[in-house]
Amino acid sequence: MADAASKCQREATPLPTSATTGNDELCIPKRSKDRGDDNAAIGRIWMWELTQMIVSALLTSVGINLGLCILFFTLYSILKKQPSNFDVYAPRLLADGKSQRSSHFNLERLLPTPGWVRRAWQASEEELLSSSGLDAVVFMRVIIFSLRVFTLAGIIGVFILLPVNCSGDQLQDVNFANLTNNSLDVFTISNVKNGSKWLWMHFCAVYIVTEYRYISSKRIAYFYSSKPQPHQFTILVRSIPVSVGSTVSNSVESFYTDYHPSTYLSHVVVHRTNKLQNLINDAKKLYKRLTHLQTEPVQPKFKRNGWFGLFGHKVDLVNHFERKLEDLEENVRLEQSDVSLAGEEVRAAFVSFKSRYAAAIALHMQQSINPIHWITEQAPEPHDVYWPFFSSSFMRRWLSKLVVVVACVLLTILFLIPVLIVQGLANLGQLEVWLPFLKSILTITFVSEVVTGYLPSLILQLFLKAIPPIMFFLSSIQGYIANSDIEKSACNKVVWFTIWNVFFANVLSGSVFYQISIFLEPKDIPARLAVAVPAQASFFVAYVVTSGWTSTASELFRVIPLTCSLIRKPFAKRTDDDFEAPSFSYHANLPRVLFFGLLGTTYFFLAPLILPFLLIYFCVAYIIYRNQFMNVYAPKYETGGKFWPIVHNSMIFSLLLMHAIAVGIFTLRKLPLASSLIFPLPILTLLFNEYCRKRFLPIFVAYSAETLIKKDREDRNDARMAEFFKKLEIAYQDPALLPIKYSSNSSSETSPLISSAEV
Amino acid sequence: MADAASKCQREATPLPTSATTGNDELCIPKRSKDRGDDNAAIGRIWMWELTQMIVSALLTSVGINLGLCILFFTLYSILKKQPSNFDVYAPRLLADGKSQRSSHFNLERLLPTPGWVRRAWQASEEELLSSSGLDAVVFMRVIIFSLRVFTLAGIIGVFILLPVNCSGDQLQDVNFANLTNNSLDVFTISNVKNGSKWLWMHFCAVYIVTEYRYISSKRIAYFYSSKPQPHQFTILVRSIPVSVGSTVSNSVESFYTDYHPSTYLSHVVVHRTNKLQNLINDAKKLYKRLTHLQTEPVQPKFKRNGWFGLFGHKVDLVNHFERKLEDLEENVRLEQSDVSLAGEEVRAAFVSFKSRYAAAIALHMQQSINPIHWITEQAPEPHDVYWPFFSSSFMRRWLSKLVVVVACVLLTILFLIPVLIVQGLANLGQLEVWLPFLKSILTITFVSEVVTGYLPSLILQLFLKAIPPIMFFLSSIQGYIANSDIEKSACNKVVWFTIWNVFFANVLSGSVFYQISIFLEPKDIPARLAVAVPAQASFFVAYVVTSGWTSTASELFRVIPLTCSLIRKPFAKRTDDDFEAPSFSYHANLPRVLFFGLLGTTYFFLAPLILPFLLIYFCVAYIIYRNQFMNVYAPKYETGGKFWPIVHNSMIFSLLLMHAIAVGIFTLRKLPLASSLIFPLPILTLLFNEYCRKRFLPIFVAYSAETLIKKDREDRNDARMAEFFKKLEIAYQDPALLPIKYSSNSSSETSPLISSAEV
Repeated sequence: MADAASKCQREATPLPTSATTGNDELCIPKRSKDRGDDNAAIGRIWMWELTQMIVSALLTSVGINLGLCILFFTLYSILKKQPSNFDVYAPRLLADGKSQRSSHFNLERLLPTPGWVRRAWQASEEELLSSSGLDAVVFMRVIIFSLRVFTLAGIIGVFILLPVNCSGDQLQDVNFANLTNNSLDVFTISNVKNGSKWLWMHFCAVYIVTEYRYISSKRIAYFYSSKPQPHQFTILVRSIPVSVGSTVSNSVESFYTDYHPSTYLSHVVVHRTNKLQNLINDAKKLYKRLTHLQTEPVQPKFKRNGWFGLFGHKVDLVNHFERKLEDLEENVRLEQSDVSLAGEEVRAAFVSFKSRYAAAIALHMQQSINPIHWITEQAPEPHDVYWPFFSSSFMRRWLSKLVVVVACVLLTILFLIPVLIVQGLANLGQLEVWLPFLKSILTITFVSEVVTGYLPSLILQLFLKAIPPIMFFLSSIQGYIANSDIEKSACNKVVWFTIWNVFFANVLSGSVFYQISIFLEPKDIPARLAVAVPAQASFFVAYVVTSGWTSTASELFRVIPLTCSLIRKPFAKRTDDDFEAPSFSYHANLPRVLFFGLLGTTYFFLAPLILPFLLIYFCVAYIIYRNQFMNVYAPKYETGGKFWPIVHNSMIFSLLLMHAIAVGIFTLRKLPLASSLIFPLPILTLLFNEYCRKRFLPIFVAYSAETLIKKDREDRNDARMAEFFKKLEIAYQDPALLPIKYSSNSSSETSPLISSAEV
Repeated sequence: MADAASKCQREATPLPTSATTGNDELCIPKRSKDRGDDNAAIGRIWMWELTQMIVSALLTSVGINLGLCILFFTLYSILKKQPSNFDVYAPRLLADGKSQRSSHFNLERLLPTPGWVRRAWQASEEELLSSSGLDAVVFMRVIIFSLRVFTLAGIIGVFILLPVNCSGDQLQDVNFANLTNNSLDVFTISNVKNGSKWLWMHFCAVYIVTEYRYISSKRIAYFYSSKPQPHQFTILVRSIPVSVGSTVSNSVESFYTDYHPSTYLSHVVVHRTNKLQNLINDAKKLYKRLTHLQTEPVQPKFKRNGWFGLFGHKVDLVNHFERKLEDLEENVRLEQSDVSLAGEEVRAAFVSFKSRYAAAIALHMQQSINPIHWITEQAPEPHDVYWPFFSSSFMRRWLSKLVVVVACVLLTILFLIPVLIVQGLANLGQLEVWLPFLKSILTITFVSEVVTGYLPSLILQLFLKAIPPIMFFLSSIQGYIANSDIEKSACNKVVWFTIWNVFFANVLSGSVFYQISIFLEPKDIPARLAVAVPAQASFFVAYVVTSGWTSTASELFRVIPLTCSLIRKPFAKRTDDDFEAPSFSYHANLPRVLFFGLLGTTYFFLAPLILPFLLIYFCVAYIIYRNQFMNVYAPKYETGGKFWPIVHNSMIFSLLLMHAIAVGIFTLRKLPLASSLIFPLPILTLLFNEYCRKRFLPIFVAYSAETLIKKDREDRNDARMAEFFKKLEIAYQDPALLPIKYSSNSSSETSPLISSAEV
């Protein structure tokens, strides 16, 4: 029975519309045209069988992933208790010195316990804010927001829409041939009440505003509560004009003492230091090797010496390295004095002011008569500055930008190849056309279920893993001056890449993959989407399960760091004090969460059955990410919640997409009243977006005069400010130009230098 | 011969492509397909005849317009010497008191003399700047710029392109049926050297930069040389939040004394005064009537009394008016005290600062935590404020904006009707189809020449006359706070309306008017334009002659003001002191000049013959507008050259359009190399535009910190500043709230009040 149904499904896939197998008596789509009266009854039976088949494939996928998740959870709760794994599962605590590596062995260490779940649950938002910064709070708010919205949507979807749809008053009226009946279509909406849609929309908008307001108030509160920080008082000035015979430094000095005499504090001219940075990196590597040799006296003489031994240099490796390091340091010092000369000056400088408000004025006012001189920018946090950027010339930066655009386009196109393969797997019929020899294997139920239900999203998942690092690299050569900006830009790129290459490419290539050209005919988009999107419901449910559940669980389990640690452990043992906790990569995780939000929004009324899976995902993500923030990741820099506008844009896009699909579906099902009732919704959404842009976005771009002046006044009577200003003057020194002291004669001051040179 | 040629032309019009008259032996387009060898020779003869026909129609038009121009010039140089016409031809001198009305009669007054041309020519740019402001200089620069560019273009076009084209090596290769051979196509380019195009482009870009730099330097120089002016020290603040129990005034006071304690000077809250303004207008009218009665004692008792005489109120009309006026003034005073109360406060205020830089800081910095409160805007000059705007509510303004958009769209669509009629005239064939009874008349050569050559552009001209006032009205309800902003916006609207409705609608409706939908297929635009644009060359030459020459000459002659003055003169004689010189309407004149620039750019290589006509236009315009600026128009307000960005945008658009047409033509004529060589040009143009936007546009938006601080320092030691600040505090009083004193008991102070209430 299932076999026949699967054949039927293969035939009913949208690709071979002109295919005429026709000998299968169970295939109702054909018969429903031939016969007239008993259509309804047979249709219902057929749908039920089809559904059973799909549901069983889905259940296979759910089963596999559930198993994996439980496995990961259990392993995690055992492994995390082993002291040897502390650097994988609690690097943050280790770096803070809160956790001791060595503890007594007891039986409890081998038993899985859910204590960490409770701890992750109990932590308050204030704790999270103080430990992981506003960005982590924003990230968690996205998950909480999604949880709340989709809980309500789930209740509506499962308890109102699903019964209405399954009772199926209207399904029989619909021409089956028009619908792509791949999947969970039975459960999908056929007659959504418009009222409920309006309600939903209304609720969503109100909630977005609440959330936006919440985040912006958090951002301002964060600013008020922050200690004086160098980047609040500093701006980056570029395109500094230099008159003949003068230096950049003199030029900056004279300009700002002239036009900002009462508020100007100091400046640091940026130098071209790429050569120097290479030298320092060499020195650092050598130093690490040296300390390694010195601290672990057993290993090196045996292991390392063996290689050199071949050439007879067996004596005193430590001395050899020491000499080499001194040479390198001498080189670095020479290069540093070279660079400090005016010749290597970049026409950019960090200019510091005596108050935040003064810095903001210098930032926002057009400084020079010539608008392309003295271009100002908010300075990033000192350790957030991306120094390599300054070394490249204007032409090179310009070319890099071009290259990035081209690379993004190419990547998007090339990525279609795995997507096509994935889709080939999801549509068995297509796969059999391509690879006929597989036919016999694919008829085995379990294999076909694994292939259709689990494999496609797993493969997609693996390919997608590579995207965030690629995008991060592309953003890094795009000319941003701060690491946080690079991460934000990468995040944006990944969001749109995911939406395009996971959602659209799957939707369009799965059913009509040769019709990517539909975007050239904007009028037809809703109708096409209305046909293609519901057809992929089962794929996306599987995607939620694979990518959502298992990926998040593997994030908890930290598969790759664990593997690395296991491999490295026999060879090297890191000391705890130069150990650094990793930072959370928002550009890899945020897009995933946002994409699930998009799936939830678009499939909410098409296939409400996706919502329970999504809800489980969000719950799991909530616990896991909180746990990871507290135990694993340490914030490297703070954007002050600047990721939120990306979240907002993605949500607005999801809503618009939902409206487009709804319009398409109602038009397709000949409900002109319903589709015209939906038309105001996108317009309202856009107006609402416009309002949010005006009302909240400026808060994320810059702080207001009111805020800055208040904060400045608070500091005015603070005795510590003098000290702060002294520090501020040297805060933006290029770490490459700081004195380097690795060699033995002055190795006591090393550790702070390493951490600052690490950036 | 001409008759046959005209028939041939009618047949060759693009509309009846499938029409098959075929019995006319002279029609080469048909024959050239049938026969093979002697094509070239006959083709040349046919072209020559066709050209002669078209040229003669064109010459008719040129003749008529030349006659009109000479007539206007002669009449002007006689009429302007008559003292009674001084208020038409030299209102400015009259208002300044430089010219006396009464002078001796002599014979010279009746002879046309060219002295005014010499005077207009001799005036230097500095004189123009000091007398008519920077806006007039910018306007003249546009004309000078066009003159220089098109002189060079004309030399290239007439002496290089035209001979190359006329020798016609390539014309015979072209499939005649593909080309619309309506017109001056003989003269049009067939094989432009790409090198010359590149050169031309390069030259153009360099020149635009020079010009942009010149204007921006002028703008800054103007600012440096300006006296302290209220609007430099003032900003307009809107959306002022008011706490319960407080007033807008208190709110502003406390906010600015709190956050700008050292620089805040004063503020003026805006009141809702529309009712009051109506009352004052009534009073003003009554006052005028009264002074009229009093100053001319002969007329009123006789003329005006007659009407009232019917009801027996013959006694003391002056007293009657005086009483009425006193009543009105009492009302005004009551209303003024009402309005001054907090109830009628608008949540907007003009806030003045002690320095320009402080005002700029308050303008550019986001003031409040809530970005939609305390919205700031540059204040316009006090007499430039458009007060009615403040009286309307937010909702009404929002609706007005919507209405304006709809109205603009409607106007554009409705305007197609006269355009179609015009085009019907230009294509005789079409006209005969519509109005068959005209056939006999149209065969008369002169009639057909007038109809095709002169009438179309005259009709279009008349319709176009109505557009600037309509656009001005639409802009005025759009929510601008300054009259100059309204004028700028209207100018922009008129520019795009002209380009769309004169250029595109003519080009597309003339040859393929049902194909306006081509803009939905952006790929085909160049090809369509390449077919349609050359077909309209003769129409646009006629347009230049009619609209350019005659309109400008009639601008000199001031037909409408002269007529008005002639009608009014017998009834009323205005006194010189309450006489106001009219202001130049940039929104009506600038778009016209820009449109001719567009014509010159696009037809430069299609039909170089248009250039001499254009050059004559620009020469005439140069003399006439200079003359008018010096004698007629007085500047009402000064935007400081802010019209220039509109000019720049229009020029860039012209260049892009030219490239599109060139690409289309080369593709059509199967010169793929040439068309692909042109492809980089639009990209370069856009990049260049981007550069200009970055380099120059900011100068037109706001003054830089450098400029402002320098200017402020200059003033610091000026003793007159105290006095200026005292004036500044009341500069932005709503004129409706100033004390009104029209009635006899205090009529000595009237005149200054009228002029301030006039705004």
